[in-house]
Amino acid sequence: MLPFDVSEYQARLSRVKKEMTGKGIDVLLVTDPANMNYLSGFDAWSFYVHQMLVVDLQEEQPLWIGRFMDAGAARVTTWMQDEFISGYPDTYVHSDVLHPMMYVADMLKLKGFARKRIAVEMDHYYFTAKAFMELQRELPDAAFTDGGLLVNRVRMVKSDQEIEYMKKAARLAENAMKNGVNTIRAGNRECDAAAMIYYHIIAGTSEGGGDYPSIVPLLPTGKNTSIPHLTWTDRTFQEGESVIVELAGCCRRYHVPLARTVTIGTPSTRMVTLGKVAVEGINTVLDGLRPGMTCGEAEALWRNSISRHGFVKESRLGYSVGLNYPPDWGEHTASIRSTDRTVLKPNMTFHIIPGLWFDEDGIEISETIRITETGCEPFTNYPRELLVNMPSTIAEQGEIS
Amino acid sequence: MLPFDVSEYQARLSRVKKEMTGKGIDVLLVTDPANMNYLSGFDAWSFYVHQMLVVDLQEEQPLWIGRFMDAGAARVTTWMQDEFISGYPDTYVHSDVLHPMMYVADMLKLKGFARKRIAVEMDHYYFTAKAFMELQRELPDAAFTDGGLLVNRVRMVKSDQEIEYMKKAARLAENAMKNGVNTIRAGNRECDAAAMIYYHIIAGTSEGGGDYPSIVPLLPTGKNTSIPHLTWTDRTFQEGESVIVELAGCCRRYHVPLARTVTIGTPSTRMVTLGKVAVEGINTVLDGLRPGMTCGEAEALWRNSISRHGFVKESRLGYSVGLNYPPDWGEHTASIRSTDRTVLKPNMTFHIIPGLWFDEDGIEISETIRITETGCEPFTNYPRELLVNMPSTIAEQGEIS
Repeated sequence: MLPFDVSEYQARLSRVKKEMTGKGIDVLLVTDPANMNYLSGFDAWSFYVHQMLVVDLQEEQPLWIGRFMDAGAARVTTWMQDEFISGYPDTYVHSDVLHPMMYVADMLKLKGFARKRIAVEMDHYYFTAKAFMELQRELPDAAFTDGGLLVNRVRMVKSDQEIEYMKKAARLAENAMKNGVNTIRAGNRECDAAAMIYYHIIAGTSEGGGDYPSIVPLLPTGKNTSIPHLTWTDRTFQEGESVIVELAGCCRRYHVPLARTVTIGTPSTRMVTLGKVAVEGINTVLDGLRPGMTCGEAEALWRNSISRHGFVKESRLGYSVGLNYPPDWGEHTASIRSTDRTVLKPNMTFHIIPGLWFDEDGIEISETIRITETGCEPFTNYPRELLVNMPSTIAEQGEIS
Repeated sequence: MLPFDVSEYQARLSRVKKEMTGKGIDVLLVTDPANMNYLSGFDAWSFYVHQMLVVDLQEEQPLWIGRFMDAGAARVTTWMQDEFISGYPDTYVHSDVLHPMMYVADMLKLKGFARKRIAVEMDHYYFTAKAFMELQRELPDAAFTDGGLLVNRVRMVKSDQEIEYMKKAARLAENAMKNGVNTIRAGNRECDAAAMIYYHIIAGTSEGGGDYPSIVPLLPTGKNTSIPHLTWTDRTFQEGESVIVELAGCCRRYHVPLARTVTIGTPSTRMVTLGKVAVEGINTVLDGLRPGMTCGEAEALWRNSISRHGFVKESRLGYSVGLNYPPDWGEHTASIRSTDRTVLKPNMTFHIIPGLWFDEDGIEISETIRITETGCEPFTNYPRELLVNMPSTIAEQGEIS
């Protein structure tokens, strides 16, 4: 059932421990579900309650702590032995008097960590302000430090097996984009397109189905193409509108996002221009990316390309991507922006998303890429252009079988 | 575009302010996306970056603060005027040097809150330990207090319009359950069932499509029915297995969850027994629920029913449900458990989920209900029994049109 050899998990753990040693950390509390999965294999929709992996420098296996009813998921999805899995009683869940971190603190004391240097992931969704306060109160003699992004940074360079899963995710993304775009025509509703995308992301092909992506398909339409994170409604598409489709295929929690913009009927001159600027910009970036370059240098390729046409983009051009859980598929480490000095290395993976958003419209044409030994390589093979759905060019809609 | 009259949002805000006054709170920072939506209408997939509503006792409109590229979503989805919408620059996103709470603190100082009593939602996913630390550092003279669940508790009793949306969500849930269950047969893959469920949850019917539910469809199968929060794989269903299906329909972010258990072929004697115990138990609860009763008294109805058959359930029987965003559709307020003294009131809504999980198998048969003036009323109308998919009884699979 494990998606990777146990030796791969152990190698990851070794790299994390090396970082911990360098920073003088005795114990790392891992609450980011992607980091938990990366080190242990743990995979369940249980991150809505408090849970964590305890990485002890002195121990060969991490310790999973979570709700008792999810301990079974830890047993079937991780490589750890039963004694490294500990469930807290249901009375700790959404309670006025008990907090799961009281249980965690008891476990940490039992392990002899009461006076140790303990790192926590300070800015992660699933490590709340209250969780930290409870830990500090229960372990007054421990020295807490921020271990945020420590594991995320170890995750940035992918293994060959991780790249294989991303390649499978790319097939899911292409297939869902094709079927979704075909649904975007006058008279259909936004929810019809979203439903079709979801169906194909998950059913996949006979070669393999897909996981849930960490973000739902985003479908800003018409004037709302100026607003990137709106989700669908059951409003009907109109002739002449344009629609941005941003989705991801997901295989074993590894994501390959893909964005395209489609017009229903003949595009306006302005949309054609925006399409050309966006495509020229992303092509320039993909042609120019090299290992050894910094993220800032990569962003300059794009900035120079669009500035020739008089455009400026405030938001970052892209971000490190791969393994994740809701609410985000980005890895929260490197961003392709002018101030980021991260050096690109082979098998780093990025979502390059040159979105141009204005007051009344916008466009997105993106690629997820892998840095290679000599340049970069997109995961998906999908027409890199403004897509145009003329009524006569719309293929038969997909069927569920 | 607003799903409720502005007067309904204003009435909600008044109720929240009354609670704030009672607790001596000057300013409430609302980071739970469901609470943000409840008070303002705000609806976008932007909760993966820091954002909030600032509720000032002295001000008639709340202030939205979020990433600049999401300010447009605030303009089109909320009832507030432009001057109550403030976006921080992209340089604050996933940065080593800038944190969005620095921007928030600057805004709070500007508003004269530097020495006020400020409540934060301490145990919510989207208020991290680091967010709190940054606010405390930037506002050393403010008095911080825990305002967690303050808005959630105001949300518990639904308005008639909220109940209407839940009724629409119930139609989506029934339709998705029917189509999903039909797909659960030997030879199909788990991902085929998940894809079919997703398609119908979102495409809905000609009367209306659906939103994304806050939790993906859960499909534990075979021995894994003992483990409630596993998600699907692309493994093939086998004759003789049982499968738990837990899903929700979602309309304007209001959820109606529904769980059923289905066997592929003739069920074992044990599954038939578990089915009878679960159905008798939930029927006893639904017959016995009354406004004025406590959650603890409601749980006793179930406990007494199953104990007659020699069963004990450790986990809670249910929880308050309705408006939410990933990763949970529960409202985190009342739980149907022995220690919860919340008094049931008309138009409170609960997911009653009598899951019985054992070492090797499990069963779930649930209902989402509304407390009425005299008892309770389920939202969905779906056979309340162990479902059996004999090959000959399987209907035509749904089609996408």
